[in-house]
Amino acid sequence: MSLDSKAMFSMSYGLYVVSAEADGQKAGCVINTAVQVTSKPIRISVAVNKDNVTAGVIKRAGAFTVTALDQTSDMLYIGNFGFRSSDTYNKFEKYETAVSEVGSPYCPEHACAMYACKLIDTVDVGTHYLFIGEAVQAEKLSDEPPLTYSYYHETLKGKTPPKASSYQG
Amino acid sequence: MSLDSKAMFSMSYGLYVVSAEADGQKAGCVINTAVQVTSKPIRISVAVNKDNVTAGVIKRAGAFTVTALDQTSDMLYIGNFGFRSSDTYNKFEKYETAVSEVGSPYCPEHACAMYACKLIDTVDVGTHYLFIGEAVQAEKLSDEPPLTYSYYHETLKGKTPPKASSYQG
Repeated sequence: MSLDSKAMFSMSYGLYVVSAEADGQKAGCVINTAVQVTSKPIRISVAVNKDNVTAGVIKRAGAFTVTALDQTSDMLYIGNFGFRSSDTYNKFEKYETAVSEVGSPYCPEHACAMYACKLIDTVDVGTHYLFIGEAVQAEKLSDEPPLTYSYYHETLKGKTPPKASSYQG
Repeated sequence: MSLDSKAMFSMSYGLYVVSAEADGQKAGCVINTAVQVTSKPIRISVAVNKDNVTAGVIKRAGAFTVTALDQTSDMLYIGNFGFRSSDTYNKFEKYETAVSEVGSPYCPEHACAMYACKLIDTVDVGTHYLFIGEAVQAEKLSDEPPLTYSYYHETLKGKTPPKASSYQG
């Protein structure tokens, strides 16, 4: 075993908010792990930490919605979704909120696209669940370039929190 | 259902070669779907089309290796791995080849990092398998910036082949 954790910085990602609502509870968090895994039909996978409130709400909702953040995102916006807990704080109060076709709240602001998915499979990958969703709604929201994870690190000087898939202790 | 396929271009990815060897058969293909899904331990998911020779070889090998391509990659290199079939062509003859700790052939050239993984789960997501691997080897191979999928499209003018996760018909 020769694991150089610095090698993990060579993987490229976008930055996303994944959200859901169940039994009146709204939840969302920031992830870098959204991927289109098939095109016919359009299916998207997201990895969410089991300890995140959002993971439980996605399970109960049987659905989730992803917004792809764009380069207009600032640290206040990312912090609202990424560095607070949906347990004690309603992340969807501070910004304009819409409701996707699967019933998730999402913020169109600072997002260049949104994808609403029905949950079709949940895979336990250890500390995280991999949620596989089938898209029923996909919309472009702006012409701004997507916020990449490297832009977040290098330009916005953003940090990776402990519950993230790519956290390095 | 309102699916605007253009919205899918707002997701950000790197570009990778995933490879494996089983029973003397070497196989590899280009993907944009490699993701670090957990950090303790380091686990990586990759989506590979079921029709790709590489998918069958990964299953038989119980292991796979991923290289993160860097910006020195040219269309000849990407074409060697992405637009040929491992069925009729040995993709590991034209370039210098190394063998990872899980026994996969991989090309250090034009790659900024490599990750060798033991296969721990295989998820059927429709046209593709999602292979979940646990990293036993992760190495930086160069200081070149990673090749992003948008750089591939916009600067190298690369196309997305029909078997890719993000193909648009």
